[in-house]
Amino acid sequence: MTKTSLIMFSGDFDRAMAGMIIANGSAAMGNDVTIFFTFWGLNLLRKPSKVKVKKPFMEKMFGGMLPRGPDQAKLSQMSWATGMMKKTMKRKNVRELHLLMDDARAMGVKFIACTMSMDVMGIRKEELLDGIEYAGVATYIAEADESTINLFL
Amino acid sequence: MTKTSLIMFSGDFDRAMAGMIIANGSAAMGNDVTIFFTFWGLNLLRKPSKVKVKKPFMEKMFGGMLPRGPDQAKLSQMSWATGMMKKTMKRKNVRELHLLMDDARAMGVKFIACTMSMDVMGIRKEELLDGIEYAGVATYIAEADESTINLFL
Amino acid sequence: MTKTSLIMFSGDFDRAMAGMIIANGSAAMGNDVTIFFTFWGLNLLRKPSKVKVKKPFMEKMFGGMLPRGPDQAKLSQMSWATGMMKKTMKRKNVRELHLLMDDARAMGVKFIACTMSMDVMGIRKEELLDGIEYAGVATYIAEADESTINLFL
Repeated sequence: MTKTSLIMFSGDFDRAMAGMIIANGSAAMGNDVTIFFTFWGLNLLRKPSKVKVKKPFMEKMFGGMLPRGPDQAKLSQMSWATGMMKKTMKRKNVRELHLLMDDARAMGVKFIACTMSMDVMGIRKEELLDGIEYAGVATYIAEADESTINLFL
Repeated sequence: MTKTSLIMFSGDFDRAMAGMIIANGSAAMGNDVTIFFTFWGLNLLRKPSKVKVKKPFMEKMFGGMLPRGPDQAKLSQMSWATGMMKKTMKRKNVRELHLLMDDARAMGVKFIACTMSMDVMGIRKEELLDGIEYAGVATYIAEADESTINLFL
Repeated sequence: MTKTSLIMFSGDFDRAMAGMIIANGSAAMGNDVTIFFTFWGLNLLRKPSKVKVKKPFMEKMFGGMLPRGPDQAKLSQMSWATGMMKKTMKRKNVRELHLLMDDARAMGVKFIACTMSMDVMGIRKEELLDGIEYAGVATYIAEADESTINLFL
């Protein structure tokens, strides 16, 4: 069984769609897939509703400006057209981003949140989806070294 | 023979230049190279002149705002300096982007347009370069699994 | 010994941090790591102080607008929050970007500046860090073909 390992660095809607389509396509073909969510990509793992956690003022403010979950993600360019793009996708029967993420996990795609990024972004475990894993760069390298497909999104 | 497989997700001038230089460099060294054009990258495959096709209003409007072909591509940052950069490249005898794309195909680099992206971007086959191939994510995964170089641009 | 080869195309602070953390993590695990700095990524190799070199007016102007070294790099989005992010990282004991670059070289990570990019960006060797290497796309392909981890940042 070959492995696919993606770094989801971006939290942009279009890049996240690309990442999830690749991840799910690879999983569907029998590959062992891992996605490392880091930096802006962590926003995709955030629960859509506000979670009460104690944080220093600056982290609270920064976190408040970042999108919570896939439904708040915007296009990397022409971001004003995000709503239009999402409507078009729906009409074309493309699965929504949060459903693609559900599909992924149902197919066994491993979601790993980068703990160092969480620390600098001021994001707590309670704010992220349940049932994901947490790790640092060493875990990524070990996984990527064994993967035939490595992509940085 | 080793394989190189690139995902050209971006349609930006600078990223496209990087992609084509890598693709052509790899092909020149005897590798089997495939480029999957997806999302904004599809714009690089568009014919420079407007092609008459029937489309719903929203797709027509969206398509009208996107660049047609490599000559309309802009820098990913400092986009106002795109003209200056192109002039500098010409003066330094760097081949133009559309010529790099011609070179690639002459060397046997495979251009594949992502059909799902075409659908959501509202781009029709008639609007794209002749002689390219069309495929979905399964084709990409199969190719990438056999490639030693996999990059997401 | 496995190889890791990164293309540092971006000069953004966040992408550069990600790249250096991956590079150093991989080197720490015994891998042979090479980073190809190209396009905007070249700015990360620039000496922080202005170096006197003779250049045509346009190159001088263009070079003057680009960041000199890692300390001038900005976030790829919400760039106004770069200072805040750097302060947060310091408070969290994340090593600074220029120190990560020093660490990399101390661990034997190879820094290669793309000569073609230097030419089009109008950047001279005297303006870049001492002790780095210079090469073109053929060197990159040869290295990447032997690498288990290939990423485009």
